[in-house]
Amino acid sequence: MTIQPLMEKIGQGARSAAGALRNCPAAQRTEAIEAMARQLRLRADEVLAANARDLEVARGMLDRLRLDEARVEAIARSLDEVAALPDPVGQEIARWTRPNGLDIARVRTPIGVIGMIYESRPNVTADAAAICVRSGNAIILRSGSDALQSSVAIHAAIRTALKDAGLPPECVQIVPTGDREAVGMMLQGLNGAVDLIIPRGGSALVERVSREARVAVLGHLEGVCHTYVHSSADPEMAAAVVANAKMRRVSVCGATETLLIDRAVAPSLLPAIAQALGQCELRGDPESRAILPIDAANDSDWAAEYLAPVLAVRTVSGLDEAVEHIGRYGTGHTEAIVCANEAVAEAFLDRVDSAIVMWNASTQFADGGEFGFGAEIGIATGKLHARGPVGPEQLTSFKYVVRGGGQVRP
Amino acid sequence: MTIQPLMEKIGQGARSAAGALRNCPAAQRTEAIEAMARQLRLRADEVLAANARDLEVARGMLDRLRLDEARVEAIARSLDEVAALPDPVGQEIARWTRPNGLDIARVRTPIGVIGMIYESRPNVTADAAAICVRSGNAIILRSGSDALQSSVAIHAAIRTALKDAGLPPECVQIVPTGDREAVGMMLQGLNGAVDLIIPRGGSALVERVSREARVAVLGHLEGVCHTYVHSSADPEMAAAVVANAKMRRVSVCGATETLLIDRAVAPSLLPAIAQALGQCELRGDPESRAILPIDAANDSDWAAEYLAPVLAVRTVSGLDEAVEHIGRYGTGHTEAIVCANEAVAEAFLDRVDSAIVMWNASTQFADGGEFGFGAEIGIATGKLHARGPVGPEQLTSFKYVVRGGGQVRP
Repeated sequence: MTIQPLMEKIGQGARSAAGALRNCPAAQRTEAIEAMARQLRLRADEVLAANARDLEVARGMLDRLRLDEARVEAIARSLDEVAALPDPVGQEIARWTRPNGLDIARVRTPIGVIGMIYESRPNVTADAAAICVRSGNAIILRSGSDALQSSVAIHAAIRTALKDAGLPPECVQIVPTGDREAVGMMLQGLNGAVDLIIPRGGSALVERVSREARVAVLGHLEGVCHTYVHSSADPEMAAAVVANAKMRRVSVCGATETLLIDRAVAPSLLPAIAQALGQCELRGDPESRAILPIDAANDSDWAAEYLAPVLAVRTVSGLDEAVEHIGRYGTGHTEAIVCANEAVAEAFLDRVDSAIVMWNASTQFADGGEFGFGAEIGIATGKLHARGPVGPEQLTSFKYVVRGGGQVRP
Repeated sequence: MTIQPLMEKIGQGARSAAGALRNCPAAQRTEAIEAMARQLRLRADEVLAANARDLEVARGMLDRLRLDEARVEAIARSLDEVAALPDPVGQEIARWTRPNGLDIARVRTPIGVIGMIYESRPNVTADAAAICVRSGNAIILRSGSDALQSSVAIHAAIRTALKDAGLPPECVQIVPTGDREAVGMMLQGLNGAVDLIIPRGGSALVERVSREARVAVLGHLEGVCHTYVHSSADPEMAAAVVANAKMRRVSVCGATETLLIDRAVAPSLLPAIAQALGQCELRGDPESRAILPIDAANDSDWAAEYLAPVLAVRTVSGLDEAVEHIGRYGTGHTEAIVCANEAVAEAFLDRVDSAIVMWNASTQFADGGEFGFGAEIGIATGKLHARGPVGPEQLTSFKYVVRGGGQVRP
């Protein structure tokens, strides 16, 4: 049996729920998200049981997939945080008066219906739902089959919460199967019901989205992030920043995957950096291997998003070569320079065209919460609509509201 | 012979020119746009001769297509205006410091390569080129075959100007034929060379773009704009605003195409409105035809973008029916209410989800210049990236620049 009628029904439901969500008062959206947090806490046992079933099916990616009571509580807490965020719908972003007396305001509006396609991270189910409700958008969730049972259990809590808050349950829907045909149909837009697709995943998803998408896409794709240690870097800072950028959490998209280091300081700095990295496997170019007893990196290492305690290491002749390497292998996510020379650092910040560029800081700060945005659905790596951390504000559009006194145009 | 190798070469040229344009100083972009204005004035005769050839081929759409010396001068003047606009590249939009001392700035960056597909308006060739150079983007122009000779002549002036300013001529390229296959290839993205397609045209182009586009689209599509005269409207204001909204220039996308009027005041207001409209053909619903001696409107009139001195007229029972009509037939461009009741007006401004909503003003104010943006490439009717008038600022992306002192994430 085909999944098509189900998907079409989901699309219609979302389109009509989007109207309810757009027009209800902000307090009702807040209430809905608070109820989600409450429901999730009530059903923690069911969510954990479902998660255990997911874990049985999929070995591998365990860190991304595993929930325990503390993680369920963390998900509920992040719902609380989104409920406490200001509601962007109707917010005036700018307002000015023209010489002819026309009063023009730019006002935030929801986008409509968002389709979220993600993999192996059950927490995305709750985060994405809350951020969309906060921004007045209906959402259709398509969880990877790895995390499907956990996501469906979390969604059940959300569904009850929406009803409790007096909103249509179609504000947040989940595709109930792991059927890959559903992804294709979402990428086609479900007969015009979907305004924006947010994909969040690895290279196979990237490729499928770019091949099949017929609606707008806000890509949250691979993060092959770089940290570049310039010859002027403070040695202790370099070791501390690189170790944190790679090892604090290896499975996040802002984790550094490749270390670039100036040839001139590699012999003096690499040993201390390697020690600070601890239990991390290094794979290097010939020059770094002359300094450290590590395996050889090949071309696929430069392009790898390991999401694991593995780091590619390459020596470079200086800024130009570092920028060139990042341009070739980077994915436009986050890149950092460790450097004491301000002119060099500013040149790096200017020339590297990634969503986030950093000077003397860990790439693991690539996170909406760390930026002060409250919560994020991910880090957008494209250049259109939103770039970098995407929170409720980034999931709005705007309209111009013009108030006049009968002006006509000469 | 196929156009494919040519189009691929254009794509590569644009991709490499985009780097030059992004990295050159703002003064060089200014110089380039000033040189464009100079070249265009120098070559006014050639442009007019080319335009005469276009006019011979295409009768119909004459107002959009025709150039004369005054219009060429107007195009050159609008180049001067874009040259005088602030350069958005590198502009800091926001900057804040986090409690951990990280200094975060959001900085405007060019998007890259823009593909512009347009019809019958030779002035778009110059406007789009200048706005893209101002915002640091390379552009590939695909003029409709109606205006091709005029556009190629204008482009020749631009090309010389770019060289004069020391920029690669590939910063602004034009597809030299009217071959429709070129549109398809641009919609496919020219092997990844195109970052964003801006279509500007009627329903046939809308349909083709939604069917074939594989890259991001910033739609500048039909403007089926409405003016709604509420029962509380001041009669003189209603007549003046409606007449201006329709007749000031009938061929612009912000021209009102349908008049909605409250049944209660139609008998008293419609005759004066019809008189103010002068040489405008009216097509009405049965109730307006009981008041005025006009032809019947059918369903296709409600959806028509006439771009001609024709106005559809429909009586409604009040705000709800007006909003409902706009939701069904509008294209999300610009809608206005003429109304003395503030609560009703605010409800209209809130409930109508168009790029521009207006109270007591002519829809012909839907224009970047009138909004104070300096110049526009068109009015975006989608909800993503930019909505409403699109000028240089709206054709930028941004990146986050994070400056630290060695912070690592706990």
